[in-house]
Amino acid sequence: MLTKAPHLFDDATQVTAGDSSWQGRSSEDYWAFVGPFGGVTAATILRALIEHPQRSGDPLALTVNYCAPVAQGAFDLDIRLVKANRSSQHWSVEMTQGGAEIATLATAVFAERRPSWSHQQAKFPQAIAFAQTLPYAAKIAASWVKQYDFRFVEGEPKLGSSSPAAPGSAFSKLWIADRAPRKIDALSLISMSDAFFGRIFHARSELVPFGTVSLTTYFHTDLESLAAEDITRVLAVADAKIFNRSYGDQHGELWSPGGRLLATTTQIAYFKA
Amino acid sequence: MLTKAPHLFDDATQVTAGDSSWQGRSSEDYWAFVGPFGGVTAATILRALIEHPQRSGDPLALTVNYCAPVAQGAFDLDIRLVKANRSSQHWSVEMTQGGAEIATLATAVFAERRPSWSHQQAKFPQAIAFAQTLPYAAKIAASWVKQYDFRFVEGEPKLGSSSPAAPGSAFSKLWIADRAPRKIDALSLISMSDAFFGRIFHARSELVPFGTVSLTTYFHTDLESLAAEDITRVLAVADAKIFNRSYGDQHGELWSPGGRLLATTTQIAYFKA
Repeated sequence: MLTKAPHLFDDATQVTAGDSSWQGRSSEDYWAFVGPFGGVTAATILRALIEHPQRSGDPLALTVNYCAPVAQGAFDLDIRLVKANRSSQHWSVEMTQGGAEIATLATAVFAERRPSWSHQQAKFPQAIAFAQTLPYAAKIAASWVKQYDFRFVEGEPKLGSSSPAAPGSAFSKLWIADRAPRKIDALSLISMSDAFFGRIFHARSELVPFGTVSLTTYFHTDLESLAAEDITRVLAVADAKIFNRSYGDQHGELWSPGGRLLATTTQIAYFKA
Repeated sequence: MLTKAPHLFDDATQVTAGDSSWQGRSSEDYWAFVGPFGGVTAATILRALIEHPQRSGDPLALTVNYCAPVAQGAFDLDIRLVKANRSSQHWSVEMTQGGAEIATLATAVFAERRPSWSHQQAKFPQAIAFAQTLPYAAKIAASWVKQYDFRFVEGEPKLGSSSPAAPGSAFSKLWIADRAPRKIDALSLISMSDAFFGRIFHARSELVPFGTVSLTTYFHTDLESLAAEDITRVLAVADAKIFNRSYGDQHGELWSPGGRLLATTTQIAYFKA
């Protein structure tokens, strides 16, 4: 029996432990076009791994392959610790519903983040303060969009502003926070790494049929350092390199307001245009 | 029985079909520090998928998690078509040796690359011609390095040039070709996407213990268009954003000499420094 958590996001990503099979339910609060928002699906998988009794170390890499739309209602997570040594763990997670074919397939790496030489080569994307940036008035009906507070610094999508002669830029810089404030944790980072609008919407200045096919996020912070940041939003940038033959890429960065690179992410997505 | 193929790379990535289990052998010609070169392992997995009788469509995304060093000799590939529909296929591949724990875990997506609106936003990284660029005289003993012709346009590693006061740039731009010329195919692209030297070597100007943990490559071309390019080298760029707590990232692009973005790649790697 799932009990009500204090934040919608925690409700939406709740899981119940089993032996190798865990259970959860897709959330109508984070619904996208034809299924749950992929970021919340990824966060649910990550939550199950973090809460797993055999888990050791911090999340390092998570890849989620969205094989088929997840339906409303219950799902099972088949979780397998594929390989472990003293410093890292490799996991595989398969999401199914009612014993049907796999809907979501994920692999994850957890690692002991031991102190080392450190160098942040990427430059912090300077931005005007969150409080001075206007919230995005989303024209997108999907419920998940309403759960986030998007504040565009650059590259706000101009949807339906008449089809332009030349492709628009796919670059965006924006603040992302939960609409109801929630402290940023690893679950936020994985979810927010899929919370950019489709780059094709920016490039085409219109909504087109779109779906993330595969998402990969790397974590550049250990959980303890992330908790110590004590933040409720990230400064995020995303861009695309190419749209070709029905698929386009995206790569992005999630930064702490104080200037630490917390996560990098990339995805390949289907589009129809 | 494996028969000799005309190119070392094709020898190294050869597989023998089974039902769900395929067989191969790690190659001493493409050996790295503690196991086979990860690019060839990834290419072997991709070859098995491309040659699989159930395969349909072109490679779109491949993620390879290097769980443990692969030993010299035979290995098994447990190949599973996880989910398929009319336009895409999701695969999972597990590499084991002698029935032991999983050494390599991969997921792949294949897709019908239907004609669509197309836009290459990324800019071709201009470079002096391959023929005018000096081959890199590798100071790295690993045999796989000898199988490639690396020609640095920018960011040639200065290994052991005394430890610098400030971190060096992790950016490189280089031509990559097989030492013995071989037409670029999807197997080349996946292998070359792991053929950048560790970004930490560039940032530190020295070799340190290093290993790729997880690699993800997206293909931005269908196989037919790639074959039509008829090229034997790519112009490649790679960079890193951060090195922190024993792990660093890498992202890169592989371009045709004519200016088409063929693949993008990212990886997270362990280092000791």
